[in-house]
Amino acid sequence: MNFDNINVPQKLVPENYWRLGLAAQRPKKRGFKELLEKRKLPLNGWPDEHIEELVHQIASLDSNNFPHKVGLGEREARIACRLVSRRHYNFGHGIGRSGDLMEAQPKAAGSTLLAHLTNALILDLMQGLGLPSCRGCFLVPMCTGMTITLCLQSLRKQRPLAKYVLWSRIDQKSCFKAITAAGLEPVIVPCLVQHQALSTDLNAFEQQVEALGAETILCLYTTTSCFAPRNSDNIVDIAQLAKRFDLPHLVNNAYGLQIGEISRQLERAQRLGRVDYFVQSSDKNLLVPVGGAIVASFDQSLLYLVGSSYAGRASGSQTLDVFMTLLSLGRSGYHSMLQKRVDNFNYLKEQLMEFAQRHGELVIESRDNFISLAITLGTLWAATGQGSSITQLGAMLHMRGVSGVRVVVPGQSKTIDGHAFPDFGSHQTNLELPYLTVAAAIGITREEIDKFFKIFNKCWTKLSQSLSENKTKQ
Amino acid sequence: MNFDNINVPQKLVPENYWRLGLAAQRPKKRGFKELLEKRKLPLNGWPDEHIEELVHQIASLDSNNFPHKVGLGEREARIACRLVSRRHYNFGHGIGRSGDLMEAQPKAAGSTLLAHLTNALILDLMQGLGLPSCRGCFLVPMCTGMTITLCLQSLRKQRPLAKYVLWSRIDQKSCFKAITAAGLEPVIVPCLVQHQALSTDLNAFEQQVEALGAETILCLYTTTSCFAPRNSDNIVDIAQLAKRFDLPHLVNNAYGLQIGEISRQLERAQRLGRVDYFVQSSDKNLLVPVGGAIVASFDQSLLYLVGSSYAGRASGSQTLDVFMTLLSLGRSGYHSMLQKRVDNFNYLKEQLMEFAQRHGELVIESRDNFISLAITLGTLWAATGQGSSITQLGAMLHMRGVSGVRVVVPGQSKTIDGHAFPDFGSHQTNLELPYLTVAAAIGITREEIDKFFKIFNKCWTKLSQSLSENKTKQ
Amino acid sequence: MNFDNINVPQKLVPENYWRLGLAAQRPKKRGFKELLEKRKLPLNGWPDEHIEELVHQIASLDSNNFPHKVGLGEREARIACRLVSRRHYNFGHGIGRSGDLMEAQPKAAGSTLLAHLTNALILDLMQGLGLPSCRGCFLVPMCTGMTITLCLQSLRKQRPLAKYVLWSRIDQKSCFKAITAAGLEPVIVPCLVQHQALSTDLNAFEQQVEALGAETILCLYTTTSCFAPRNSDNIVDIAQLAKRFDLPHLVNNAYGLQIGEISRQLERAQRLGRVDYFVQSSDKNLLVPVGGAIVASFDQSLLYLVGSSYAGRASGSQTLDVFMTLLSLGRSGYHSMLQKRVDNFNYLKEQLMEFAQRHGELVIESRDNFISLAITLGTLWAATGQGSSITQLGAMLHMRGVSGVRVVVPGQSKTIDGHAFPDFGSHQTNLELPYLTVAAAIGITREEIDKFFKIFNKCWTKLSQSLSENKTKQ
Amino acid sequence: MNFDNINVPQKLVPENYWRLGLAAQRPKKRGFKELLEKRKLPLNGWPDEHIEELVHQIASLDSNNFPHKVGLGEREARIACRLVSRRHYNFGHGIGRSGDLMEAQPKAAGSTLLAHLTNALILDLMQGLGLPSCRGCFLVPMCTGMTITLCLQSLRKQRPLAKYVLWSRIDQKSCFKAITAAGLEPVIVPCLVQHQALSTDLNAFEQQVEALGAETILCLYTTTSCFAPRNSDNIVDIAQLAKRFDLPHLVNNAYGLQIGEISRQLERAQRLGRVDYFVQSSDKNLLVPVGGAIVASFDQSLLYLVGSSYAGRASGSQTLDVFMTLLSLGRSGYHSMLQKRVDNFNYLKEQLMEFAQRHGELVIESRDNFISLAITLGTLWAATGQGSSITQLGAMLHMRGVSGVRVVVPGQSKTIDGHAFPDFGSHQTNLELPYLTVAAAIGITREEIDKFFKIFNKCWTKLSQSLSENKTKQ
Repeated sequence: MNFDNINVPQKLVPENYWRLGLAAQRPKKRGFKELLEKRKLPLNGWPDEHIEELVHQIASLDSNNFPHKVGLGEREARIACRLVSRRHYNFGHGIGRSGDLMEAQPKAAGSTLLAHLTNALILDLMQGLGLPSCRGCFLVPMCTGMTITLCLQSLRKQRPLAKYVLWSRIDQKSCFKAITAAGLEPVIVPCLVQHQALSTDLNAFEQQVEALGAETILCLYTTTSCFAPRNSDNIVDIAQLAKRFDLPHLVNNAYGLQIGEISRQLERAQRLGRVDYFVQSSDKNLLVPVGGAIVASFDQSLLYLVGSSYAGRASGSQTLDVFMTLLSLGRSGYHSMLQKRVDNFNYLKEQLMEFAQRHGELVIESRDNFISLAITLGTLWAATGQGSSITQLGAMLHMRGVSGVRVVVPGQSKTIDGHAFPDFGSHQTNLELPYLTVAAAIGITREEIDKFFKIFNKCWTKLSQSLSENKTKQ
Repeated sequence: MNFDNINVPQKLVPENYWRLGLAAQRPKKRGFKELLEKRKLPLNGWPDEHIEELVHQIASLDSNNFPHKVGLGEREARIACRLVSRRHYNFGHGIGRSGDLMEAQPKAAGSTLLAHLTNALILDLMQGLGLPSCRGCFLVPMCTGMTITLCLQSLRKQRPLAKYVLWSRIDQKSCFKAITAAGLEPVIVPCLVQHQALSTDLNAFEQQVEALGAETILCLYTTTSCFAPRNSDNIVDIAQLAKRFDLPHLVNNAYGLQIGEISRQLERAQRLGRVDYFVQSSDKNLLVPVGGAIVASFDQSLLYLVGSSYAGRASGSQTLDVFMTLLSLGRSGYHSMLQKRVDNFNYLKEQLMEFAQRHGELVIESRDNFISLAITLGTLWAATGQGSSITQLGAMLHMRGVSGVRVVVPGQSKTIDGHAFPDFGSHQTNLELPYLTVAAAIGITREEIDKFFKIFNKCWTKLSQSLSENKTKQ
Repeated sequence: MNFDNINVPQKLVPENYWRLGLAAQRPKKRGFKELLEKRKLPLNGWPDEHIEELVHQIASLDSNNFPHKVGLGEREARIACRLVSRRHYNFGHGIGRSGDLMEAQPKAAGSTLLAHLTNALILDLMQGLGLPSCRGCFLVPMCTGMTITLCLQSLRKQRPLAKYVLWSRIDQKSCFKAITAAGLEPVIVPCLVQHQALSTDLNAFEQQVEALGAETILCLYTTTSCFAPRNSDNIVDIAQLAKRFDLPHLVNNAYGLQIGEISRQLERAQRLGRVDYFVQSSDKNLLVPVGGAIVASFDQSLLYLVGSSYAGRASGSQTLDVFMTLLSLGRSGYHSMLQKRVDNFNYLKEQLMEFAQRHGELVIESRDNFISLAITLGTLWAATGQGSSITQLGAMLHMRGVSGVRVVVPGQSKTIDGHAFPDFGSHQTNLELPYLTVAAAIGITREEIDKFFKIFNKCWTKLSQSLSENKTKQ
Repeated sequence: MNFDNINVPQKLVPENYWRLGLAAQRPKKRGFKELLEKRKLPLNGWPDEHIEELVHQIASLDSNNFPHKVGLGEREARIACRLVSRRHYNFGHGIGRSGDLMEAQPKAAGSTLLAHLTNALILDLMQGLGLPSCRGCFLVPMCTGMTITLCLQSLRKQRPLAKYVLWSRIDQKSCFKAITAAGLEPVIVPCLVQHQALSTDLNAFEQQVEALGAETILCLYTTTSCFAPRNSDNIVDIAQLAKRFDLPHLVNNAYGLQIGEISRQLERAQRLGRVDYFVQSSDKNLLVPVGGAIVASFDQSLLYLVGSSYAGRASGSQTLDVFMTLLSLGRSGYHSMLQKRVDNFNYLKEQLMEFAQRHGELVIESRDNFISLAITLGTLWAATGQGSSITQLGAMLHMRGVSGVRVVVPGQSKTIDGHAFPDFGSHQTNLELPYLTVAAAIGITREEIDKFFKIFNKCWTKLSQSLSENKTKQ
């Protein structure tokens, strides 16, 4: 509601006070109008009250919230538990329509509007993050892995005879399972190792294309954001390769949206070569609960193929989360978080190099990784006689509240869906030294970094002592 | 918290009042303990306050809610917008772990517990609904169609050489797209038409198995709940066929959980034949917002194959909705909703038959459909000279707040992913008379039914008049 | 907000769906407009969402919620804790203005509107409850007792030389303390006792007026709702007395608004005599949390004297509670609660008479009490040798969850602010038999009554046995 | 609840994850225990979730929240509207018991605990703010003025023959009406004026005491926090006078709790003289919505007299607000707000002096006012020919979002309850120059101050021009 056409009697409130009150509503009304008409992310974040007001208004456009509704179908978005209803602001219809995520729903004008508006805001955000040529994107209420599967499935509809996916190795299970889930055949292209850092092996890619024949290949599949010492894939070169062989190119940009360098690489890859889809996690980049991913493309028509590959309608909960988060932060709020991340990454790097120096270790130089860092654990490893007890370090950190660090040790192989991954976790086959990775992702605070080094130091000391004692005993 | 080990001073509250207050907490504490230890759905629903208390407690076990957390990973379940955080009760980690929906998360004991407990409560509910042999189930945060795709993908891992899915035709897009999304080849088995009602053509299924060869067939795929005049598939016979040919059998039980007869058929099909998975919508059966489905099986080990086919972790939002809804209703609350649905279905049927009689139409007898009803629109159609203007009826109803009814008219063909569906919407190729379907799904009220007939009658009259006027003019 | 002047692009939502959504908003908009313009309680209750929307909109008119506010005063309604802010819907300014509860606040158009509108709705409700001549009322954010004190204080400003308040005895502390708190001199007029029931002693009132001289008397002060076996005061006769002697008449109508007979008596008292103010509890009559009272009068100008006696501004929290409750119930919701109360009172009375008969006791006939009932405890008392151990009965009931019953025993005297009350609790000086009172107030359920008799019976039996055993031992 | 005695099965969550989750609960549990057992304000603020959890737990101890409750009284804290219930966390019983605000309620152990605990936390806060000798305090759910009335009423019970209240003039209506509301006789003691600043006239006080006779005087009534150029009363001297004449001394400390100097003066006044009660606003000092005040005393027994003067029970809403706010801020949060206020006051003063200098005006030196500042408006006034059009300045500022400033102009008299106040607003009888006051109260931001001066400057310029134009025209 608003008070526009209501003649509030003087008995309720004197007219001059009333007019002042009404005048104060104007900025909010202007904000609502602009958002809906221009579909651009506001510069400054909105207060919670405005966000909730808009969300409630949009929800009231869905038929399950009509006062006069008569539901005679099998799915009428009835919500039995009022706690559930309340937490979803009475949205019940989800997004999309049987078999197309981007289609409008006749029963749910509000949900439809919310979904399309959210996609428009994400696009506006992305274009402002170094991706001006991005032409479309949409939020899929599935994780990054499954969304990549969805992209692969839609590519298969276009290239029904192709079955191979050429994939630059990265040791994260769901990246790989995204291929097998689609019933496709992964071809693992190992990384180049130089001074312990890993990068894309362009030649190997090219050789595989030639060996298998381009027509049998569904697409090239690269990854940007990853754990050090692996670097972001060289997506510009791969994009050029893709263009040359007329092959689709799919980029797993899981948490790359928060990194300016990667966005710029994507833009460049598109200019010089070919990028069909790039997929990013909504939780990792936009700080919402786990469960969504964003498919983006430089060619809007390609997106419809993905949207219509989803069988059924889908949860609108992720859309609501992203919508509220974007309005709450505003463009400036998000950019300021990105800037803080950069500062904290640099701070983390400095501190880690200092730590390394003090303990006779090394921070592995991985120039094209702007989020994750790896420090060697050579001296500790030597202390254990190169045993696996060094993995204790991870457990010790975890028990003290540190999450997200990884200790990677030589000799830990794994088989996933029939494919062997020697030295799993290291993205390579001949890991020589164990290392530990840390990352500075969006939202990290300086206090966390300081606390981490305090704990890391304590654990290091404790572990060194106990290892050397053990050795003495032996 | 509770007050158990706290010595509240007399200055704050006199001891006798205090003791009475504490004593009143006992039933609640007992309820919490039993729920967690026995993992059974409580008989009676809980008050909102108790549900929220438990949910908050469980969420506090996740590492993102630890006061001393230090997050150095790329995904730390940070939530930027406090409205989002609040509506998710601070849950951020989702469920599952890279590549397995049922795995526990080291960072998220609470989310893990919530997911497993919710699955246990659903199982308990299902066993009490006529499926005592059901051995496991889990909630997938994707719609029914995509969850069926997931089941097909996991079947493919077991039968890599099979590519056909034998499917008893039902004209809902997402049921069919579930097959093509998985990159599999659908084989459409037409229904038998008898007195306008449709049922499973067992012989046609058998012929197809023999024609294609069992080894090329991934599975038989049937559907229970559907729009009249199609009946629930004869799943007992198909299950026996599946057993005979050693073929997997997948049942789309979209909104069948609310129908006792269907559950009993499923149980019987398993006893006499083979059912691998049956999939049901969480929103249609449990009245939560759109976005989840439940995979169930009579063999628990089969479920792990599905869970591990999901590439990545997944949204926990659907889990939370189902958890809160089940606790809020309790077993008795859910059963009483089911009973009301049965009563309302009978009432709807009576009223529809009366309406049909008054207007010279017929309610098509579809004995194995316990939720949807179809009434012929012969006289109206005659009035239009069998033109398609009869579809106006649907629009007229919709504009007056009636949702969920469908007007099906001869001659509306459609092609989906390259497969032709003549007379789409009718599940058959030679529809003769148009009809309208209505359903009495869980949650429908008698008031809705009464309002519907008022509106239906008004629209019918209006349309008849305008059609006959048009005819006169011509 | 609303969508009225917003051109939502087709890209966001197709126009026909959009128009249906907009059309569905009309009843709500009409409801808002009517409420504000006509200031009448809606017939039917509103859904929670509509109530919250309106409340949020009203709050946004207060200056503390202006986006551009610059606060340089000593009180700017800043709210430090967002939980507090949220639960008050961002209202912070309270109601009234230094020294007048009914004045508008320049800083707070919203709070002002809310207060005046709430008072208008209460007035509309009261007029429909049998008080058509009521000319005004307002909610005071203090309990009934303190609000009576406020009325007395405002009467004193008009009659500065009068100091006595003639008060028909009722044994509730705060009724009496309302007089002494104002620094006035209470004159206790004992009730007439007839067959154990108590009623107003009109002659005693008249004698006191003559003895003290009307000019020394501030007002006559009567009470309607009370514990049986005291009856509602005979307010019609006292009103006539007041008129004859030109004396103000103040009625404590604490929980009388829920009783049709009392409202009709008030209306009659005014017609035939004089009633200046009648005061009722908002929590007891309108089922909101404790803390407010409603002053009403048949002469609006008298109310301003009360409003301007309050020194300062006051909490708006009670106003908000009453506003939301009235909108939530609607006129029909409230009336249906009143009807249920009448039915339950009759049911309680029947059951109590049956219980009395079974146990050789009596329900004391107090014809002018329509809410409370008293049952004698003669046989139990005989069993104790007329000792005070009979008070155990109350404790036993309380321990089993029964609240609100009172056991009144002869011989319990009390002194309040220097005035002696022999047989305190019984409203009389020579109580002969102990009794227990129960009430059927608005909101009571039949289940509660049934549970009560189960527990009452159990306690009665247990106590009888233990009393007779004790007697035997002696 | 907590998980202490619950054996959570491994099936729900692996034991090591579970143990980590449980371990993380310890700080919270310790916090709850300490709060309840020690009744001290925590050093650091609590997160919202912990506050709400505790509040919910406390509410569950009230009988209206018992699952097995049977309510047969006239007031059972039933809440009809669930929005109301939710916003009060299901508290319904209010605080106190008929006729004593500090008494425990048998029906409401939770409300009782909440009230007492909140009072304990306020006391702890006050002791740490420079009032170590403070022995007790309690929150009254009425504004400062009415709470002062309550104190006066309780003093009258102790000195029934005294009727005069000696009051150092301050031009705020509710301060004065607090006396007349109690039916007492105010004796206005004018302030001393020196260099435009005002201070307490000790001699005048002494003369009045002697003239009227101490036995006729109820108490001396001073005010600390006030608008410049009035200073805080010289409470130390008045306290000594009170002690000498054995007279009660009541201090209106409305917004003085936020000012260290005033607290120290109070402490000193008590050491060297006599202070019976000092009363402060909860909204002005603790940033909660309007509606409460805190009565404090250096002698706990004096407080019981005030508590038992309140006729009835009272709203618990203010208690809840203060409780949540204090826990949310913690001691350190509150102290840091105080420090910011001091900094902002100094900043405001500097800026104002600069502004004054630029415009040929003066910031009046009022040394004992640490919160409010007055700037003369001589040049503007001269421009109007000393007309009253200068009051436009206030309206202009208000229209631009500036609230809380006051323009005080010579010649504005007022009569309140029969007492004349010449030059009302200026606290004196011979105001020569108009002035404007601004205050830096707790919660003010530097941005607000900067915005104020921008607007002030604009208005000043605009007004000067239009005034000089008008003059030219004349």
